[in-house]
Formats: sequence, structure tokens, C-alpha cells
Amino acid sequence: MDVYEKSLELHKKYRGKLSIEGKVPCENKEDLTYAYTPGVAKPCLEIAKDEENSFVYTNRGNLIAVISDGSAVLGLGNIGASAALPVMEGKALLFKKFADIDAFPICLKTQDPQEIINICKNLEPCLGGINLEDISAPRCVEIEQTLIKEMNIPVFHDDQHGTAIVVLAALINCSRLMHKPCDEYKIVISGTGAAGSSIIKMLYNYGFKNIIAFDIQGCLNRDDMDSYDDLKKELLNYVNLDNKKYASLEEGLKGADVFIGVSAPNLLTSEMVKNMSDKPIVFAMANPTPEISYEDAKKGGAYIIGTGRSDYPNQINNLLAFPGIFRGALDAKATKITEKQKIAASKAIAMLISDDQLNPEYIIPSPFDERVVPAISSAVKESCILEGNIRK
Amino acid sequence: MDVYEKSLELHKKYRGKLSIEGKVPCENKEDLTYAYTPGVAKPCLEIAKDEENSFVYTNRGNLIAVISDGSAVLGLGNIGASAALPVMEGKALLFKKFADIDAFPICLKTQDPQEIINICKNLEPCLGGINLEDISAPRCVEIEQTLIKEMNIPVFHDDQHGTAIVVLAALINCSRLMHKPCDEYKIVISGTGAAGSSIIKMLYNYGFKNIIAFDIQGCLNRDDMDSYDDLKKELLNYVNLDNKKYASLEEGLKGADVFIGVSAPNLLTSEMVKNMSDKPIVFAMANPTPEISYEDAKKGGAYIIGTGRSDYPNQINNLLAFPGIFRGALDAKATKITEKQKIAASKAIAMLISDDQLNPEYIIPSPFDERVVPAISSAVKESCILEGNIRK
Repeated sequence: MDVYEKSLELHKKYRGKLSIEGKVPCENKEDLTYAYTPGVAKPCLEIAKDEENSFVYTNRGNLIAVISDGSAVLGLGNIGASAALPVMEGKALLFKKFADIDAFPICLKTQDPQEIINICKNLEPCLGGINLEDISAPRCVEIEQTLIKEMNIPVFHDDQHGTAIVVLAALINCSRLMHKPCDEYKIVISGTGAAGSSIIKMLYNYGFKNIIAFDIQGCLNRDDMDSYDDLKKELLNYVNLDNKKYASLEEGLKGADVFIGVSAPNLLTSEMVKNMSDKPIVFAMANPTPEISYEDAKKGGAYIIGTGRSDYPNQINNLLAFPGIFRGALDAKATKITEKQKIAASKAIAMLISDDQLNPEYIIPSPFDERVVPAISSAVKESCILEGNIRK
Repeated sequence: MDVYEKSLELHKKYRGKLSIEGKVPCENKEDLTYAYTPGVAKPCLEIAKDEENSFVYTNRGNLIAVISDGSAVLGLGNIGASAALPVMEGKALLFKKFADIDAFPICLKTQDPQEIINICKNLEPCLGGINLEDISAPRCVEIEQTLIKEMNIPVFHDDQHGTAIVVLAALINCSRLMHKPCDEYKIVISGTGAAGSSIIKMLYNYGFKNIIAFDIQGCLNRDDMDSYDDLKKELLNYVNLDNKKYASLEEGLKGADVFIGVSAPNLLTSEMVKNMSDKPIVFAMANPTPEISYEDAKKGGAYIIGTGRSDYPNQINNLLAFPGIFRGALDAKATKITEKQKIAASKAIAMLISDDQLNPEYIIPSPFDERVVPAISSAVKESCILEGNIRK
């Protein structure tokens, strides 16, 4: 039985992956007078006086919703809300396991951005945060940016920023390992969707300014911008600042120092890696089949290789980021998660590996490294407080 | 320290009353390949093929949302969404404790019926049912009736029907105890809000046709209907069929067999009970202070007394009904909860007390009687299947 059949059996056996449990005594009539009526009137009234008390007397302070519309689930595409549920339950499971956060999966029937925004805003009174998940680009960017602006709890679209935070952490460590400053890297990225667009912005904001981006239409450049959607137009502020034209990914990669793939299987050959700079870095993260296999990247002379897979070194996995990010944001009583907090998370991940431990096969810690969540959450919390994005 | 202070302390100590836990193995990389990627793609695809599979491979089949807008919380009124959260968490706790149902509290910022309806409909893909809670009348009736019509999972507003189901059960047992058929009871009800309106309809549909209703404007009658909202207009189909005029509750109660109070404190005196028929029945359920105290009802000669309190005999408590109702509906794969299923629940509650056990101080079982939930859920399940309101 393969991993898929085993997974199906697991889901059927347990009928899902989550359980909602009571955590207060509830054994007899007396218990109920405190946990429910009449006693419960008191915390209600305290919250009515000051909404902040909802973070004291209810689960809200440790509770987030994992919200999807099922429009871009894993690599499976637009399979709809109910079909997205196993992924959202899995995500909630990971939040609990890795960061002790109570997370509840919500899959919405509508795929209309304005309706999704409206529903999320109306859910605010009972939530401490929102993790958006598996919502297709470019809609996901509009939805997240609007919610960050209009809500008073942290909203974070993991598909955009989770991978981006870990990619930046990995590049920070490449830079440390190679003693090579940010501005000496020419970076080529394939994919400008949810993850790609966030990677581009984060790398740029951190200091990697020489970025060339490719998507299915080719190399992003100013001359073609009339055919771009708003997200791609915005990306022109971060990529290809010299407005060069490359006829193909192969062209673009010549002499490049870094390849970042968040796109499609088998776009890269060993030959293309050979034509990159000395000691090239290849992060091929398309799932489940990457842009180039680990073996072929190696054959092409890649110095550092990162993949999305757990069976090779340097797994670039968003699981490294999201539990600690939300743990830190909830602990800080954050009202939003900003670019600075995401960069703080990247640095925290990178710095878990000491100078003498760093090597081409170890630039990223494992998600099972128990230092990861505390390190990120402390860094994010500190950054939230520093920026003043916290509830009083 | 009184019950309110103790409750506040409890809520603060535990920071809320619920916890969301994983129920599948999640200890190492291998576990994650089944619970999350890549294995999880398989249940997703099975659900994409047939949405019914979401009830097999996720929590959906055992999951309901407890949804409120905070507009009519306990007896506290319109205290808002966040302030309603302790009650909704408490309700979810009871669903787990009494019927092993996973229930998640959702408190909505909006109080616009159409928006609430829209949000509930959009939550359908991830839920097995919806328990509406603490939404003010008459809005609650419009919201619930629309959702029952337009959704394919059971929707039930407990404030309307929970108490009504138990009141009918109690009256069935009064009738058994007194060997007196339904049509010989003259019933006076005080309160035509959420609970009152449902009590009226259920009693009428069961066979109690002689009902007089009072609210703050006086006795419901056809001559005043121009000033009524839609709900009160609808109630005229069930009450005061002879269109009598009573100047006051006191007038209406003269010679009545049953008083049902779901209204306001201290409306009834011992004297008024004395002027009812022989062996009068008094259910005074206003919370926390009833329409008449147990002692005063007794003094007035009430033969059977029911209250909402646990410290007197015959506690008429919706906790008797809602856990078993939803357990039965989920077990049946019900698409809705109908009047017939509610009546089936009332009968099941009543029949738990045998003829020789029945007495004026024991017409209703305790919510802690372990036979209650199985009896109701079996009856509701059978009724769902009989009516054909089930998913195929």
C-alpha cells in the first residue's frame, strides 16, 4: 500500500484529524454553574465592558482559523471547499503539534474575493488570528492585503509568505557560508504566483536587489506590462530593474548565482545549471516533482541544493515558519504580521545554525528541530512590540 | 466568592473552555506524510469526486458550529459578538460532554439577517450542522427558516426549539399523569419571542389547540394584528382561535389549566394561580428570576410546577434536548431537523419516565440521566429516515 492509500485509510479510520475538547471541569451540576449558566454571565459582561477581555476569558487568545476557498489546493488546483478540508485539518493539526495553537479549519463555498473578505471580517470577534490557505493568485494577494488593512488581528497567507520566509533564511545562510554579500547575487526565480511574488518582495526588502523573474509568459519586463494583472505590475518594482530581455529561462540563468523554482516540474536541466555562475545555488521547490531533481542539479555542479522534500538535505518547508510566526504574533497580542516580522523570522531560522555547523548540506534546520518555534516566536514577538503593532 | 466570581476565575485560569486537539498520530516525518503532504492529496481527490466523502474522511460528520451574533445573550440582551463567546464555548462544551459532538463557537460581527444567512451558507462545506444561538427574535426565525430551506445540513435554533421540546415533553407527561387528553387543556403562555413562538407551534402541532398568548402588548388577537410583526401575525394561526379579548394576564389565566412563562420576572401571584382551574400546572421559566417563585406557585395550589432551575423538581432545561437532537441528526445524515423530529424528541424524553414513576414532582428526567441522549438520538434518527430528510 502506497502513501496515498495509507493516508486514505488513516482519514477513514479516524474520520478526520481533529477533535474539539473541553478543558474545564464539566462533571456535574455544580461544574455547569461555573462553565455555563448562570456563572458564565460574568465573563460575558466583562467582555461587553472591554472587548480586550475576550482574550482573557475565552480561547480567543490562542485560537486561529485556517481559512480556504479550495481554489488552489496543494498542486491539485481548484478542487473546491469540501475537498480542501483534509488539508486544512492537517494544517490545524500542525499548528497544535508544533506551536500549541488551537486552529480551526474553515472552508468557504464562495470564491468571490469580496465575499471572502466580508466573511473573514465578520469572524473577527471570535478569533485571535487568520491563516489563509490554498487561495489562488492573484486573488490571494488582494484578499490578504485588504484584511491586513481592515482587521485588528493578524492575517497571514501561508502559501505566499511561509515558503518565502524559509527561502530568505536559506539565502541568508548561503551568504554567510560563502562570505558573499547580498548585492553580489544574481537571482533567477521561476514562478510569480502566491509563493513567487512573496519571495521576490522579501528578498528585495532584505537586500537582494538583482532578481529576474520568469513565469509562463516569459521574463517579466516593463515592455510587456500592459498584459499583466495588478500583482505582476507591482512585481516590476522589485524585479528586472535594468529591464533586460531574456528569450528564455535558459538565457536568464546564464551566469546567475541562484535559481529559485516555485513553478512547474522539469524546467531545468543539468546543462542549464552548468551555465550558471561558479558555485551555483539551486532551490527547486515545485511539488511533488521539482523543477530539477536533486541528482540532476548535483550533476550540473550545483554547490547548494534545496528542495521541498524531506528525503534530501535542506528541505525548504513552510512548516519551519508558520507555527512560530503565529505563536509569536499571538504571544505579542499582535494586530498584524508585517514584512519586518517576516524578515525577523527568516533571521531567527538562519541563526539557529552556527558558523561552524553551516555547510552546503545544512543551511536550513529541520522542522523537527525543537529550537525552531521558540526562536521564531521570540523574534516575531520582539519585532511586533518594536513596531508597535500590538493591542494595548 | 459567589458563583459569578468563581466562574470568572475559572474562565481566566483556563483561558476559555475549549481546546482543539489532533486525533491522529503526528510524531515524526512519516506520520506527516499520511496526515499531511503528500498523502493528504488522496482524501482531497476522493472528496472532489463526491462531496459525500467529506463526511467519511474529515471531521465534518461529527462537527457542528454554534453560531451567534450576540444580539440576545442569556438574559443580558444585545451585548455583542465577543461578549457572547463564553456562552458559545460553554454550549460547545456541553455538546461534547453530553453527545460527543465536536462543536465550534462562531460569533459574528454583523447583526444583519441577510449577511448572517449568507455567511452560514458559505460555511456549509466544512460543517455537519449549525446550532444557532442567542439571536434575537423575530430575526432568529427568519434566519433559521431561510437556512433550513437553503442549506443541506441540519440548522437548529436552540433558543426557539430547545425549551419548546422539553415543555412539550413535560405537558405530555402531565397529560399521562392526569389522564386528561390534550384538547381539554386551556393553556396560557406569557412570551412570544424565540422560545414562546416555538412552544406555541409545537404544542399546537402536537394537539394542544387551546392556547392563549400574552406578550408585553397584551393578549394576541386578530383585531390588533396590524401592529404585529410577521412572526406575531403567523402566531395568530396557532393561538386564540376564538379571538377572545382578555384585558390582562390575570383575566386570561382564570380557569386556565396550564401557565407557561418564557417572559419576565414576577408576573404571576399566588392569587392568580388560585384562580386557575383545578390542579393547575405552572411552568415558570424566565431566567434567572421566574414569573413566579416555586414557593408562591405552591402556595397558590399549583399541582405540577416546572422551573428553569436545577434546585427544584422538574427542571425544564433545553440541555435535555439539544445534544440528543444533533446526535440523532448527525447519525441519520439528516439534511434538516423538522417539526416531526422535534416532536419525536419530546416523546422520547417523556417516555423515559414510566407510568408508575410519574408523579407531580417527576414529570421530566434530569439532563444527567444517561438514558436521555441515546433515547432522543434514536428517536430523531428514526424520524429523519422515515421522513426521508437524509443524504443519500
